[in-house]
Amino acid sequence: MARVSQEHLDARRRQILDGAARCVSRNGFHATSMQDILRESGLSAGAVYRYFRSKEELIAAIADEAFTSIRGAFEEAARTTPPPTPDVLLGRVLRRMLIERVPGGDRQAFARLIVQVWTETLRNERLAAILDEGYSGMRRAWADLVGAYRASGQMEADVDPDHVARTLIATAQGFIAQQALFGDVQVEVLEDGLRALMSMREPKIS
Amino acid sequence: MARVSQEHLDARRRQILDGAARCVSRNGFHATSMQDILRESGLSAGAVYRYFRSKEELIAAIADEAFTSIRGAFEEAARTTPPPTPDVLLGRVLRRMLIERVPGGDRQAFARLIVQVWTETLRNERLAAILDEGYSGMRRAWADLVGAYRASGQMEADVDPDHVARTLIATAQGFIAQQALFGDVQVEVLEDGLRALMSMREPKIS
Repeated sequence: MARVSQEHLDARRRQILDGAARCVSRNGFHATSMQDILRESGLSAGAVYRYFRSKEELIAAIADEAFTSIRGAFEEAARTTPPPTPDVLLGRVLRRMLIERVPGGDRQAFARLIVQVWTETLRNERLAAILDEGYSGMRRAWADLVGAYRASGQMEADVDPDHVARTLIATAQGFIAQQALFGDVQVEVLEDGLRALMSMREPKIS
Repeated sequence: MARVSQEHLDARRRQILDGAARCVSRNGFHATSMQDILRESGLSAGAVYRYFRSKEELIAAIADEAFTSIRGAFEEAARTTPPPTPDVLLGRVLRRMLIERVPGGDRQAFARLIVQVWTETLRNERLAAILDEGYSGMRRAWADLVGAYRASGQMEADVDPDHVARTLIATAQGFIAQQALFGDVQVEVLEDGLRALMSMREPKIS
């Protein structure tokens, strides 16, 4: 057997993941077979099964990639003082996920894939466990950042960091749902909206 | 044929909608048949088909109910000066949707149903149109409210109302996604998180 470079292996893996993402976002998790994925990625069964044994493993790898990219954005943010505000960081995370590293380049398709995965976790315990772990990591990262907001006087000291974390994650998830449903949402919309919320004041009494 | 009261008709309709919601949230849209819904609601085919001709009509009616309940909360809010802040109104809407009027009383199940419907709209144009209309109405209602925030000096005058509307809707959708995925999110979490965001300030320069 010929020896192949790591680059070649990585490119193959990428080709398979992108093909799987396209199939699932188009036809849903259940209607997609490994055969469809082979056809879409243009590789032989042997080549694909060398990397992934099942659809589930493929989806798990895609979810894992997404969480790794999000983690990277948070690690970068944690090294900045004062930390980036929620609008800046959330904008950065969503651009990474939906624009810079979108399988096949279609951002609505990737958002649809995510919503498909949410639905699938309702019946698939292994996928549910992967998502659970990924979200727990995100909650901890946001909560750490809220600690930094408190330390720099940007946020009240009595705020529960996990509540803020969950709210910000919810905002990103809802953005993905809108992207999946309507396909026409720009990341700037969410950045503007968060900035407007962050600037709210008491009403003027007239 | 015996004449029946409107109350009786409404109760029957309720019974069918609740049965359908339970089936779909448990097994998904595709795996649920009209037979399953008949069994779950404990009614005859004749009784059910008198109200709804298909699964699709049933889901459309459930979505319509949810949007009507949300609209009611906004109409109430529009009559208050100054208008309720986003945390208060979003909390009220989510309590109406997920707690007070949940088919079968299981809030995670209802959230799962909503996520199932999102997935289904990706392939079902009629459902997509119903959701599109419902969301457009919500966007207008939130945008009107942002107008009121601007008028009362609670929000900057140059904020784009539709961007704030989309962001707040995203927060609610993400809350529903978390409820579907993890099932343990209290409405208070989102209220707290929004309040913390609304209270953010510039960092203290040390």
